[in-house]
Amino acid sequence: MTPVISIVGWSNTGKTTFIEKLIGELKKRGYRVGTIKHHHGKVELDKPGKDTYRHAQAGADAVVIASPEKVGMIRKTDKEWSLQMLVELLKDMDIIITEGFKKENAPQIEVYRHDLFNKTPASQPGSLIAVVSDTEHERNVPVFNWNDAAGVADLIETKFLG
Amino acid sequence: MTPVISIVGWSNTGKTTFIEKLIGELKKRGYRVGTIKHHHGKVELDKPGKDTYRHAQAGADAVVIASPEKVGMIRKTDKEWSLQMLVELLKDMDIIITEGFKKENAPQIEVYRHDLFNKTPASQPGSLIAVVSDTEHERNVPVFNWNDAAGVADLIETKFLG
Repeated sequence: MTPVISIVGWSNTGKTTFIEKLIGELKKRGYRVGTIKHHHGKVELDKPGKDTYRHAQAGADAVVIASPEKVGMIRKTDKEWSLQMLVELLKDMDIIITEGFKKENAPQIEVYRHDLFNKTPASQPGSLIAVVSDTEHERNVPVFNWNDAAGVADLIETKFLG
Repeated sequence: MTPVISIVGWSNTGKTTFIEKLIGELKKRGYRVGTIKHHHGKVELDKPGKDTYRHAQAGADAVVIASPEKVGMIRKTDKEWSLQMLVELLKDMDIIITEGFKKENAPQIEVYRHDLFNKTPASQPGSLIAVVSDTEHERNVPVFNWNDAAGVADLIETKFLG
């Protein structure tokens, strides 16, 4: 099973920015990295007028677009897919990073900022394996500096890619 | 195995327009329809600046985006996927329509226009099961009028969805 790590945290804490750094660090170490993110707006594979967009508009339940370098797919769903179903799409990866999915039970790394001082943690205590923070911060799990994607990658390697 | 039908024809014969009609006809009959198309330009799941786009730019090999109604995926490939690999992504569909892929060996329906009079057929003779044409046209397979998506859907139902 490909390990899945969820990067969680309240809005505007910089989850995406941290994930960018973490992807770079994991790629540097040679891993195949997949990511998963929720989106609450519209999801379109292509631009209005393009052929695959037209297929989707005409009612296709799923559309695949293939170029020499990439494969894209978009499909309608009857109900929202669980994290487990989404992970199936990426089972050939070495590691899967999710942005959000804090209610699912993958191991979680919380992105924290000191201006969230009064907020409850975004993570689930039982799933939390580390915190990334812009400030000194006491938790009962390892706390990494916001810039220390290498440190977090070390932790992921040791725990999940050993 | 989900049946695969390739709609082939030279450029600007109206393949996409015919596929739109055929999708509508197959959907009306209650089938789950997937489509596959080649694309020679850039394939992007999302717009510059959006989170999943940033994941891809940061080096992720595959990115999944999930909304309550849709699931999207884009992945880098080392080499171009075969039709068979692409079909694997849609194996839960009832029928798969490809736009193009005339060199692969799925059953082919050729979209023909009378101004292609002097051109060789775009289809492979051994794979051709029907022609869609804007004009009277002699072939050794059934020839349907350009507007007769229902007739083509009948043929597909009889031959592949029986």
